[in-house]
Formats: sequence, C-alpha cells, structure tokens
Amino acid sequence: MNTRTQRRAHKSLEFLKRAWLLPASLVFLCSCQNSEAPTPLEKQVSELQTEALQSDLAFSLLHALTTEVGPRMAGTDGDRRAVEWARSIMTSLGFDQVWLEPVTFPKWRRGSETAFLVTGYRLPLAVTALGGSTGTDGVMRAEIELFDDLQALSNADSQQVQGKIVFINDRMSMGEKGRGYSQVVGGRTDGPYVAAEKGALALVIRSVGTDNNRLAHTGSIALPQGRVAVPSAAISNPDADLLESVINSGKPVELELQLDCGIDGAATSYNVIGEVTGNDPESGYFVMGAHLDSWDLGMGAVDDGAGVAITMAAAKLIADLPERARRGLRVILYANEEQGIYGGREYARAHSHEMDAHIAGAESDFGSGRVYALASTVSEEAQAAIEELAGLLAPLGISYDPEMQAYGGADIGQLGLLGMPMIDLRQDASLYFDIHHTANDTLDKVNLDDLNQNVAAWVTLAWFMANTDQAFGPP
Amino acid sequence: MNTRTQRRAHKSLEFLKRAWLLPASLVFLCSCQNSEAPTPLEKQVSELQTEALQSDLAFSLLHALTTEVGPRMAGTDGDRRAVEWARSIMTSLGFDQVWLEPVTFPKWRRGSETAFLVTGYRLPLAVTALGGSTGTDGVMRAEIELFDDLQALSNADSQQVQGKIVFINDRMSMGEKGRGYSQVVGGRTDGPYVAAEKGALALVIRSVGTDNNRLAHTGSIALPQGRVAVPSAAISNPDADLLESVINSGKPVELELQLDCGIDGAATSYNVIGEVTGNDPESGYFVMGAHLDSWDLGMGAVDDGAGVAITMAAAKLIADLPERARRGLRVILYANEEQGIYGGREYARAHSHEMDAHIAGAESDFGSGRVYALASTVSEEAQAAIEELAGLLAPLGISYDPEMQAYGGADIGQLGLLGMPMIDLRQDASLYFDIHHTANDTLDKVNLDDLNQNVAAWVTLAWFMANTDQAFGPP
Repeated sequence: MNTRTQRRAHKSLEFLKRAWLLPASLVFLCSCQNSEAPTPLEKQVSELQTEALQSDLAFSLLHALTTEVGPRMAGTDGDRRAVEWARSIMTSLGFDQVWLEPVTFPKWRRGSETAFLVTGYRLPLAVTALGGSTGTDGVMRAEIELFDDLQALSNADSQQVQGKIVFINDRMSMGEKGRGYSQVVGGRTDGPYVAAEKGALALVIRSVGTDNNRLAHTGSIALPQGRVAVPSAAISNPDADLLESVINSGKPVELELQLDCGIDGAATSYNVIGEVTGNDPESGYFVMGAHLDSWDLGMGAVDDGAGVAITMAAAKLIADLPERARRGLRVILYANEEQGIYGGREYARAHSHEMDAHIAGAESDFGSGRVYALASTVSEEAQAAIEELAGLLAPLGISYDPEMQAYGGADIGQLGLLGMPMIDLRQDASLYFDIHHTANDTLDKVNLDDLNQNVAAWVTLAWFMANTDQAFGPP
Repeated sequence: MNTRTQRRAHKSLEFLKRAWLLPASLVFLCSCQNSEAPTPLEKQVSELQTEALQSDLAFSLLHALTTEVGPRMAGTDGDRRAVEWARSIMTSLGFDQVWLEPVTFPKWRRGSETAFLVTGYRLPLAVTALGGSTGTDGVMRAEIELFDDLQALSNADSQQVQGKIVFINDRMSMGEKGRGYSQVVGGRTDGPYVAAEKGALALVIRSVGTDNNRLAHTGSIALPQGRVAVPSAAISNPDADLLESVINSGKPVELELQLDCGIDGAATSYNVIGEVTGNDPESGYFVMGAHLDSWDLGMGAVDDGAGVAITMAAAKLIADLPERARRGLRVILYANEEQGIYGGREYARAHSHEMDAHIAGAESDFGSGRVYALASTVSEEAQAAIEELAGLLAPLGISYDPEMQAYGGADIGQLGLLGMPMIDLRQDASLYFDIHHTANDTLDKVNLDDLNQNVAAWVTLAWFMANTDQAFGPP
C-alpha cells in the first residue's frame, strides 16, 4: 500500500490541486450518539472529518518533507532547507500569515562513529553517538563495566568505574509490565554526567528502544548546566545482548570506541509559524504544532514529520472553509526540539507577555499512530466544553476520561509552564519506540489511514477551539 | 524470553554437563494416531522427541557459536575460529570420528562501502557490497537508470545504460501473491553481468528481502565463468523506496558510490565432518548438515548457525543412546556455502566414487522456523518407509504430501545431482527473509521452542534413517 500511495503522492504538486478541492463527501460520520438528527455544528465537523479521512494532503506533505528535504538535524543544511520548505508550503497552503522567529542553540556535529567489541576477536557494533556528546579524541580502548541501570551506576564506588567505559544495560519495554521510556531514558540524559563524576572514560548505553534491530537509537544527553559529561553513545539492542552475554561469560572484554562529534559553536534556526486568523482578534488563538527538526540518522518521517503534516493539514482544511472562525489557529513548527527543546523554550520566552491570547494549545509529537484518547488540563468551568469536544471526537474511536490530565508535550509544555491550558490527543505508540531516533524513521513506517485519522481528530479539535466562546484557563 | 534463555545459556560449559544428562521425560509424545499402545519403535522415537523439545543443547551450541566465534565469512579469521570450534565441539559431544576436508576458493574481502543520493542534497544510504563484487576504485558518481527487474535491464538498449549506475528496483515479497526469493534473486546474481554487457558503470539493487529496515541484504553474485561484472551493491528497502520516489519525481539525481572490496587471492577452509558410526559398516550412512560459514554483517545465528546447532544436537541425542544404530550418521558442516556452494561442491567431488554409501541426505539451511512438512525424492520402493517416517513426525505438527518432491538445499543438492536420495524437513520461512544476509541475523531472532521442534524433527529423521533396512535410491 505504501508504495502505491507514494506513487500517487510523488506527483509533487498535484495534491495542491486535489486534496482540498475534494468535494465534501455525502457520507457523513455520525457524531450524534443517539438517533437524533445531527445539529448544523455536528454536521460541519462530520464533513471536515470525512474530508480529512479521504485526503492525501498530510501524506503528500510528509512525502515532500522526507523526500525533498530529508533529515533535518538542527543547525544542518537539512534544517535550513526544512525551514524554507515549511515557510513556502504554509504560504502556498493559504495560511493568512506566515513568519519565522529565530532560535539560537549550540551546534552539535556528528562525524564518524565506531565501536568494536574486543574479546579474542574484534567485532564491529551498531553504535551511534548521543546528541550533545563530546568526541573520544581518537580511538579509546578500555575495559567495560556493566550496570543494570542508572541507579546502579549512581550507587557504584568510583574505584569500580575509574579508567573504564561504563555500560548501562537498561532495556526499555512497552506494555503493561514493561519499563517505559521515562523509566529508562535517565541513563541517556544523566548517565554521561554520573559516569564523569565517577571517573569513567566514556559511557555506552543499551539503546532506549523496544526493537531488536541492529540500529542504535540516538537522542540527547541532558543540557550541561555547568556539569561535565563523558563521551557517550548507544548500541543496538542485539549488540547490547551480545555485550551482556560476553561480559557475563567472565572472559576478558574491552571496548574500542571512536566518536568524532561535539559542539561546534552556535547555530540559528527558526520556529516557522503560520496563522489562520480569526474574525475576532480579541478572542485569541488556539496553538497547535509539532517540531520541524529531526535526528540525522533517519528521515524524521515518524519523529516528527508526521506531526508537522498532521497539524498543517488540519489547519489547511479549516483555512479552506468559506468563512473564518471566531478565533485564530496558530501552527508552530518548532526548531530544535531534539537537542533541548530550544524552539519551545524560545517561543515561550518571546511570547510570555501575551499568554492571554494563547487560549489553549496541543502538540503532535508521537508519530502517526491512531489517536485513542482525549485528555485536558483546563479550568473547572471548561469541563463541559471539553465533554462537548469529546462527543465530536467519539466517532473517530477516541475515548475521554475527565480524570486524565494532559501533559502537553515537550514544546507546548513550555507554554503549559506559563499557565496555558493544554489538550492531548493521545496516540497509540506501540510501534513508536521501535523506530524512534533510528535510521529506520522512514516514510514506509507511516500508515495512510492512521495518519488521516490523526488529521480528522486534529481538524475536529482545531475547529472546536476556534469556534467556541469558552475560556479554558487558568487550569 | 530470549534474554532469560541467554542468561541460562551463557554459563558456557554448563550445557555440556546438563543437556544430554537430562533424564528422558516420563511424558511421551504420542506418535500413534489411533488409540493403540505405542510400539517399542514409536516409544523410543517419542522419548527422543521429548528429550529434544526439553533440551538446551541446540540453543547452547548456537549461543556459543554466535558469542564465542561470531561472524565467520569464508576465508576470514572468524571462519578459521568456527572450524576449530566445530571440530572441538563435535569431539567433545562424543561423535565417533571427526575430521576436516579442505575446501579452496577465491577469497573475497569487504572493506568500506558508502552510497550517497545526490539530488540538491546529499544523503547517505544503507548500502552493502554484494559478495564477489569488485570495488569502485575510489568514489564513483553517476546518473542512475532505474529498471523494474532484471528482465527490463536485459531488454534495455545499451545507450540507455552506458556510463550510468543501473538500479534494479525489484521488490521481494512473501505470501501467496508475492514474488519469492527465486523470482527476484536473479537481479543480484546475474544483474552485475548484464549491467556490464550493457556498458553500465555499476549496479545497485533493491535488497532481496521482505523487511523495511534500513539494513541492506548482501549475498553473492553468480560465479564469473569468464564473464565480467560491474561493481555491485544492495541498498535497503526504505532507501530503494526513496530512490524510486526521487527518480520518479523527475528531478536530477545521481548516486555517489564507493565500494572497497574484491577478490584477494585464494583461501582454504574446511568441511567439518563428524560421524556417529553404525554397527553395520556395509549399510552406509545418512548425510545431514548445514553450512558453517556466514555472512560478515550479522552473527549468522539464523543463516546458518541454526542449522549447525539443530543437526549437531540431533546427532548428539542419538550418539548418547546405549547402542549404535545399524547405519552411520554423517554430519557435514560445509565450508563457504554463501559465496558459491564451495563446500558442497568439493564434498561431492571428493566423495563421488562412494555415493552408494550415502543412503540419503538432508540439509538444514532455513533458519529456526518450525518444520511444517516432510518431502522426499526417493525410489518408488521407498515410499512406504517415507510414510512410516511421516507417521513418526506427525506428532510434531509436520504434514506429508507424497506428491511433494524434496529440493534438498544448496550443499546437499550437489549430492542430489549425483543421484543421492533427498529428504526435506520444510520450515516456516515467513520471517526468514526479513533477516537473511543482514546485520540483523543475531541470536535474539531465534526462538528456543521453534529451534527445539527442529531438533525433535531431525532426531526423528536421523534415528529412522539409521535404523531402517530400507534402501531409498535411486530416486
């Protein structure tokens, strides 16, 4: 299906003619839970949802971003091309205003990276440097010390670690009994600093991912804040299995690590912002978006090309309606989320004086898995409106539990810290961490129907937030 | 489960004490299809099957081969270590005779390999040289010409190809409607020669594999036989999708290819042969085996460490019986199957004068997927015996269709050409070509229960062939 879809999609600008000229289908999704006739409101939402589910727009945008732009790690040429692409596409899609806001950050550079297991034989491992890591300054060869997790390393005596390469062998698994991302990721973010404090030479972690492919998962170490980190890398899960196995066999084992990477001055990229204006400037705008940067190893189709495509397509469907809604829709494509949420933090800093205009916000940064639940962090008074929204989302298979709080996401969370109400459209992420931050993040991993279900959910959310009179904050 | 199994298994030599001292379980698999009491013959097979299903032996052998030896491409240090490992393990497992027979072949060397898509931007692709390929002698940069399959390239006018890099974009898929391995692999084996005849500079193929990982599938080109081939490589399926998409967009696109590889003199490795002798030397021996060499990219756990472990473990279970069977069992671990079936061909050449003693043969070279069917190529007179064998295999979920002919396998097929009767234990290969010839061929891809079902099937086959009076040929 993907190949067929791509063949349809590659006809480059064809989608610009087709996708939003598609006549709204006569078959409406029924958002009425009982047998009463749909209200005009429900009927309009139903039309938007139907159009979203049938459109090629999001997939075409994602195809263009991954094919014409490719990887777009912050500060690279790909990043610059992505900014220009997004600005240009938003303009051609008919957003009323499109502008850039600069974001400056340390420029991290990845060069060559190799690791060899040395234990009677010398075996290359699937390795990748962690974002923000320093290099090894040539080839480093040292004994390995295995720790089950960050806590075990933190508890270790320095003598056990000094002069060695530390290996944190903490496996992430999904599912009810598994250890999720947040439980394991500390090894990646803080491990490099703890290893340095203990006198280690370098850190290697088991990839923070749920797959068994010989592809390592990159991702950033925490921001320095005056601390010193050792050179740090991740190895793939099968390589970590092997390393664990050889270490446990009791045979002598060393690691030969060479990382050519590091911070190379500063770079400036841009938050790319497009607005579909409302007809009542006093009523503020709903903030939606995703991050435009990606890691360099893959194409950033899932993380976060999908979010870029979903939110742009949803806003476009509303921009195409004959009349502007009451409130505006502001789509923010954030710069450099991956290496420290620079875009989200800079946007929050630059707009902190006008938070009242940001009536609420949401973020799409979990790939293209289907939306299964609505959650919100809003005022008590806004609960009834959220329940109305939940009713509109229900025909898409999206549930709602009033007890569940929104967490917002990395970028939007910076506005949440300033008191902005937040909405979550929670996605099925069961395959997300197989792909996350690896070379495998490519277009074939995106399912067209799932992507469009997201667009349908987002257009419902955006349309509702733009049209309601309800205030949602302070939460 | 894999990690737990490995933890058990890594206790290196413990399996040597444990696995075949395991008392035969009191719970027998019932090989009797009706409610009659099992015959002594059926009871003994049932005990062997039960022991095979409960044993750690095959997994422990596979763990040792992949952990202690690792990749073992023909002619490399790993190959030499594998031969020594196999000889030593066969001896310690209690085979009555163990010996080596030399096999000489051209030594192919893989060095660095890179490919970049150049189309306004420059993007690294997941690439690997095909076995036997020559190098590019530095960086080659040229226009790409896409062909849907080998036939399309064969039909092409030379002018369309001259001075370009040819891209054969033929996707392998499994399942009823899919194109199987044999339908697609010609692009890899013969494509390099056809491309050379047409005047192309190099060949790049879509990986012959069913996965969507950013890992390229290697594999050999056909043996030269006086023909000239261009430098040849495979790119991963997602990279082939991208290349196809960019080419179809009509934008200018070039490939920058650098392959450092080639034939580097000759090397000698060994067929490692172990025999459990029979008590009637005149009655010949049943030939079973797998290939010991692997590709260099992965650990050769699936291809063909699994076959090595399965056939060694099955023979070992019979060697441990209190009495020797009538016929011998000869386990042959073939050298260099991957680059041209050198081990199988050399064994057939060296033993062609004594084919009568080879009463029949079988090969395990399809990973560790469960055995689902029995097939045979034997004489008319032997059909009843094969049906008896089928009855013994049935409790393992293995079916039998007398119309289905055995194809033997790459190495054993060389003996089939000399008239040796052949038996197939056909395996579920639905995941095999996701992994085949890639870096992903690692121990975690092997399921313990499936591996042991293979051992149970092989011990049944071996025990039956060693004990029956039946002659199986000429087919």
